[in-house]
Amino acid sequence: MNAASPAKPTLVALLHGPDQPGLVAKTANWIYERDGNILHADQHRDDEAGIFFQRIEWEAAGATEGEKEDFSSFVKALGMKVSIAQSNVLPRVALFVSKIEHCFVDFLARWKMGDFPAELVCVISNHTELRSITEYYGLPFHHIPVGKETKKEAENSQVSLLRDYKVDLVVMARYMQVLSADFLATCGCPVINIHHSFLPAFAGAKPYHQAHSRGVKLIGATAHYATAVLDDGPIIQQDVSPVNHRHSVRDLVRRGRDLEKSVLAQAVRWHLEHRVLVYGNKTVVFD
Amino acid sequence: MNAASPAKPTLVALLHGPDQPGLVAKTANWIYERDGNILHADQHRDDEAGIFFQRIEWEAAGATEGEKEDFSSFVKALGMKVSIAQSNVLPRVALFVSKIEHCFVDFLARWKMGDFPAELVCVISNHTELRSITEYYGLPFHHIPVGKETKKEAENSQVSLLRDYKVDLVVMARYMQVLSADFLATCGCPVINIHHSFLPAFAGAKPYHQAHSRGVKLIGATAHYATAVLDDGPIIQQDVSPVNHRHSVRDLVRRGRDLEKSVLAQAVRWHLEHRVLVYGNKTVVFD
Amino acid sequence: MNAASPAKPTLVALLHGPDQPGLVAKTANWIYERDGNILHADQHRDDEAGIFFQRIEWEAAGATEGEKEDFSSFVKALGMKVSIAQSNVLPRVALFVSKIEHCFVDFLARWKMGDFPAELVCVISNHTELRSITEYYGLPFHHIPVGKETKKEAENSQVSLLRDYKVDLVVMARYMQVLSADFLATCGCPVINIHHSFLPAFAGAKPYHQAHSRGVKLIGATAHYATAVLDDGPIIQQDVSPVNHRHSVRDLVRRGRDLEKSVLAQAVRWHLEHRVLVYGNKTVVFD
Amino acid sequence: MNAASPAKPTLVALLHGPDQPGLVAKTANWIYERDGNILHADQHRDDEAGIFFQRIEWEAAGATEGEKEDFSSFVKALGMKVSIAQSNVLPRVALFVSKIEHCFVDFLARWKMGDFPAELVCVISNHTELRSITEYYGLPFHHIPVGKETKKEAENSQVSLLRDYKVDLVVMARYMQVLSADFLATCGCPVINIHHSFLPAFAGAKPYHQAHSRGVKLIGATAHYATAVLDDGPIIQQDVSPVNHRHSVRDLVRRGRDLEKSVLAQAVRWHLEHRVLVYGNKTVVFD
Repeated sequence: MNAASPAKPTLVALLHGPDQPGLVAKTANWIYERDGNILHADQHRDDEAGIFFQRIEWEAAGATEGEKEDFSSFVKALGMKVSIAQSNVLPRVALFVSKIEHCFVDFLARWKMGDFPAELVCVISNHTELRSITEYYGLPFHHIPVGKETKKEAENSQVSLLRDYKVDLVVMARYMQVLSADFLATCGCPVINIHHSFLPAFAGAKPYHQAHSRGVKLIGATAHYATAVLDDGPIIQQDVSPVNHRHSVRDLVRRGRDLEKSVLAQAVRWHLEHRVLVYGNKTVVFD
Repeated sequence: MNAASPAKPTLVALLHGPDQPGLVAKTANWIYERDGNILHADQHRDDEAGIFFQRIEWEAAGATEGEKEDFSSFVKALGMKVSIAQSNVLPRVALFVSKIEHCFVDFLARWKMGDFPAELVCVISNHTELRSITEYYGLPFHHIPVGKETKKEAENSQVSLLRDYKVDLVVMARYMQVLSADFLATCGCPVINIHHSFLPAFAGAKPYHQAHSRGVKLIGATAHYATAVLDDGPIIQQDVSPVNHRHSVRDLVRRGRDLEKSVLAQAVRWHLEHRVLVYGNKTVVFD
Repeated sequence: MNAASPAKPTLVALLHGPDQPGLVAKTANWIYERDGNILHADQHRDDEAGIFFQRIEWEAAGATEGEKEDFSSFVKALGMKVSIAQSNVLPRVALFVSKIEHCFVDFLARWKMGDFPAELVCVISNHTELRSITEYYGLPFHHIPVGKETKKEAENSQVSLLRDYKVDLVVMARYMQVLSADFLATCGCPVINIHHSFLPAFAGAKPYHQAHSRGVKLIGATAHYATAVLDDGPIIQQDVSPVNHRHSVRDLVRRGRDLEKSVLAQAVRWHLEHRVLVYGNKTVVFD
Repeated sequence: MNAASPAKPTLVALLHGPDQPGLVAKTANWIYERDGNILHADQHRDDEAGIFFQRIEWEAAGATEGEKEDFSSFVKALGMKVSIAQSNVLPRVALFVSKIEHCFVDFLARWKMGDFPAELVCVISNHTELRSITEYYGLPFHHIPVGKETKKEAENSQVSLLRDYKVDLVVMARYMQVLSADFLATCGCPVINIHHSFLPAFAGAKPYHQAHSRGVKLIGATAHYATAVLDDGPIIQQDVSPVNHRHSVRDLVRRGRDLEKSVLAQAVRWHLEHRVLVYGNKTVVFD
């Protein structure tokens, strides 16, 4: 199912911390001395903040699990934060959906074609409309209704499920509920959301109505990590399409779907390939 | 200088008002019965608001000045508002500039190549840096300094000049001053501004700094009619370019220039070709 | 299933022919005199060739079938060619597919959401991989294998099916076979194909390999009407995406899918809304 | 004049050759051991061809001229080809122009704003129309007419001038002559050309006419290194704009200018920042 992985298992480290001389040499040396083969190494320096960022991917000569721990200790001793992924351990993804199907159906089709190096472990929905297509693709579907009174309880059930499934990433494929700060604090993994506007313009409800009312000439979509503040999290990817006076709100909704599908898929793919590093409220995307 | 005009003079009417049966037939008939030749006719209906919009361009058999008045009376009798331009009467444009030169130099070069069906009658600036290039292109340059204390007085001088030159359109080519509501009420013509963000995101000062700080993945530019509310007027044109974490604010500024140049030029060209109809806080652009 | 149709049935005429004075007035009058209500009217003049093109959509007061014939006679008497669609008679579409699923699955999902004003009547494939998803969407699936020896025979079976289903449009959703001139001459309806390059660059086989080998910085997709000359028919829609040296052929294939999906869907939608007029080897798209 | 240079002089090496273990570590170490500070390091591997590419930029502790030679020897000993630039030695650029002014005027304005880390040393033209604007910007203008009979002689004069001015890069800003293979072999520096189509579509003369005639829905521009085969050299940058049936050839020409200006400027800027590595008939652009 995972066409994107290279034949041999690799390690991918994302690290960042205070800039200092020799960092590129030090990490490259560490790997070279252990007979590792660096496949990709990409650096970035935030000159204003004095921060060094690196994504480095290599084939390890030895057992990858041990190498992972050793590299982590080495990098931390340099004062850096690090997160390391192994290409042969697929991240486990849960999809949150509602009734709206375009992002979800598109995501499933891409996953089936091997676009995402991940296991799709379950689908969670507050409605039942998307049960049938979920089951067509052979995935478990969990219906957890969410009402005004029952939101807290529903979120507890969701968190429970995420733990049972050992989920590494939640993707909100047009899940039309706001996740509480509590949920985000306890769910134990990042959450990627797709918002149907070019943020920060038109945050909140009914962005296509807002866009139509303001008379903008482009509509957009934004994939970002969900945070406690609505539509304010670190942006991973954005795209836009031209519109004009002939387009009704309904047309914007329809045309926006193409953006939502491709922007969400790109953001999730980058995340799964361990290319996205969050710092402050921004992202570095090593694409 | 005006490569865009057709050989024979034409009339272009922009009209709008309450929708009613037969409007397309009525305007077309009126012209046909007077042996006019319709070159372009474009309609739009705002179904929600029940408003009909039309741009119609034709070669008149008779004297265009009289035809203009007659058509105007005819359309008003149908309950519509109308504005009519004659292709052989070039609109008179004044440019407001400051020190920043890219939009201005680009505008001059386009004008010299015949991109704008207009007379460029004068350049007004609160600085003197752009005097030399203005004079290279053979245009009058007026230096009107603007200070905190002297803004009112400066605006009066500007309005005076606009009247003397019989200006039909003011173009703010990165003129870094906010025009007062008073100025806009008395200057006697529309004002097109270029704002260096994708409005409504990042209105106000230093939009590239705002964009950099929010970590967006696209920067934009917006050409709009200036109104008393800053960066809030009807939008004529917008465009965006991708950016990433490697781009400093300085890079955004540089990359944004291409957007500002082309978006402003497109908006002004559409306005001069009598393609832009403002209603409420939005535009219909018959492109 | 058809969310795009207006509440009341309308007629849409596409007409073109030698330009002559009064055409806009004449067609508008004809409709107005019969108490029709023009919803949209868009004209184009090819000044070089002296040809007039029009798309006009109206609500007819009387029975639409008779009105259709009458309007047709009227327009032909003006020396024009015309094709008229009724919004309450949905075109019947057949999909030709092979093993590649992205365009097909995307098309089905859009159709289910009501994006296409059409009946999807059958799916024809030279393989069986896509039978299951076809049946999930409740559509008949016809397996017609195509071999070197059996191509003629297979095409005869295809044409037979198209006649039985009274098909108005064939959509090749990455059907990897070239249709013969014979097939196109006898199938009785237009055929829309999606080619995975920015035509006329990289016509023929393996366009992503060709693009990779030439080192282009953009890849494209082109939707066009199939003609007897491979990848040479009238172009309806095109789009591109940036690529760089880091992208392998496999990456181009993956990134190109988004283009293929959206470009094909847009072209088919325009065709079904009776917005595309073919003349010579080009199209006028009244969007 | 050169806003893009960092405060401290740096070296930028572009290297490529057969891939082998430890290359990233070896180059980084070499610099680190000499107390150099790596500012940027970007790698690429062509997995099919087994070639390693790197761009590495660093502040050298010692004298940069010596460091340049030493690094060069070190890299060659690894079996790699290398080219090294010093940020404090500005490349010397000559512009070739004809009568068409948009690319040229735009280029001058960008240069004046500091967009190009280069010295603009002279302008060479086969016409005299652009003498005045060249002199406005304080640059030497050389008129070398080119006739059918005198082409060889003219090219000799051009090569002479390039040598006198010690030119490092020729930019053809819509110079409407084909440079001969002889010229390219003897001029002693790379030549960047802007072609007004999305190559390989519409190579050769009158690409906008070709595009109009084929009925494409996008027009493009391509910046590439000139080679002995017309419009066939390694592509540096490409971009496109949407067009439709309403656009005449004249409209395509006008709309294409924006593409030509920005694509040429971007390609030249990348070249001057030593970001473009040519191999075979393709480029690696470390942007």
